[in-house]
Amino acid sequence: MLQNIRVVLVNTSHPGNIGGAARAMKNMGLSRLVLVEPQDFPSPEAVARASGASDILDSAQIVATLEEALVGCSQVFGTSARDRRIPWPLLDPRESAKACIEQVQLGAEVALVFGREYAGLTNEELQRCHFHVHIPADPDFSSLNLATAVQVLTYEVRMAWLAAEGLPTKMAKLETTSMLNTQPVTMDELEKFYGQLEATLVDIGFLDPLKPRHLMTRLRRLYGRSGISKLEMNILRGILTETQKTARGEPHKRREP
Amino acid sequence: MLQNIRVVLVNTSHPGNIGGAARAMKNMGLSRLVLVEPQDFPSPEAVARASGASDILDSAQIVATLEEALVGCSQVFGTSARDRRIPWPLLDPRESAKACIEQVQLGAEVALVFGREYAGLTNEELQRCHFHVHIPADPDFSSLNLATAVQVLTYEVRMAWLAAEGLPTKMAKLETTSMLNTQPVTMDELEKFYGQLEATLVDIGFLDPLKPRHLMTRLRRLYGRSGISKLEMNILRGILTETQKTARGEPHKRREP
Repeated sequence: MLQNIRVVLVNTSHPGNIGGAARAMKNMGLSRLVLVEPQDFPSPEAVARASGASDILDSAQIVATLEEALVGCSQVFGTSARDRRIPWPLLDPRESAKACIEQVQLGAEVALVFGREYAGLTNEELQRCHFHVHIPADPDFSSLNLATAVQVLTYEVRMAWLAAEGLPTKMAKLETTSMLNTQPVTMDELEKFYGQLEATLVDIGFLDPLKPRHLMTRLRRLYGRSGISKLEMNILRGILTETQKTARGEPHKRREP
Repeated sequence: MLQNIRVVLVNTSHPGNIGGAARAMKNMGLSRLVLVEPQDFPSPEAVARASGASDILDSAQIVATLEEALVGCSQVFGTSARDRRIPWPLLDPRESAKACIEQVQLGAEVALVFGREYAGLTNEELQRCHFHVHIPADPDFSSLNLATAVQVLTYEVRMAWLAAEGLPTKMAKLETTSMLNTQPVTMDELEKFYGQLEATLVDIGFLDPLKPRHLMTRLRRLYGRSGISKLEMNILRGILTETQKTARGEPHKRREP
């Protein structure tokens, strides 16, 4: 179950922090590390700080964009130290871990995303996350070391996982409906949906590409928190496709002979 | 209250870990650090890793024995990675933090004691502790970095303190946006939306009124659980209105003169 949880480090400056994060992960029983544009990796410093968890460094996946790092994930938790202008679903580490374990219990994959040492995640990156996680640090000194932040989140994940394993009645699956009904959509499928949604809104004249304002941000927030299933996604994509046909003046499917 | 909680590091080898522990403490609102026979302190490496928490290093108390470090404490929690031959009251980090906060609420002083990087605390030192704390790591890789172990314990202390004080574990949302953004939509507004959604799906030929199947039920379930705000509802209604205009062949709003 824990293997469905990946830790994503974005644009990390210090290889020591990558090593420290790997060690924290392995301590907590996690194994899948994804590095988005690490500034200095592989590195002997990372291996030294990993202190026995170098197998996690060896199997780490290195990618160029956060989007690539999130392929296959149905829920993404992004850590954020800063206040945001646009409110977003905000969880503390414990709530995040609980939500995370609930997802992997459904067979889904989830990602815990950590930003740069000094600048965190950009607003654009944060908008790719379903939830923002804030470690409730002292407001006067709130920036945690990257590896210790990974430790706090993965510790809570392990605590939630142990709790879940200790209560087998919660694990019992009562799902009689088909997998498609409840299987959560993945990040890449969600991105394709946003792409088609945006194109459709342009087609019907609702979105002006020259003045997009916050429209897509707001729609991403709405659909991002909805936990859309694969079946629901099929419906939403179908609606968009019919809308686009209508905008192009094509005949309606059900009116065809 | 948190000033009554001291962190005691016993015979630490690496000054970087002392700095990392100081940073973790300050992040979580703790300030009192006691070092029992540190092997290399003060040290520029400690200051570098403290990353702004050097005030905690400057005011750290350096003592020769654990006994001195614990003067004035009424409850002592000792971290232990190893199984012990002699059974001892054992708590997980969350239980320890709760007990710790209960003590300081009574005006008592407590200590969280962390052992050497490789050897932990000796049996003699562990017997000076009222409770042993075990971080539930993967049994196959259970030795945490010292600073991250301090982070886990002090994080739990802060979570317990916030709960005891009735303080939120999440940042207060910066409400610079209007109420419209977050105010939830009412049931009747939601029903009007479903009505327009159904009409629109008929207009674009996606829904056959003679064979509706479960389409509206599924869409109701999706949007019903999303907690749509008034602002989001305005956006969704706007999209439907433009879609309906498009279906009637009316010109696009934004293309009008």
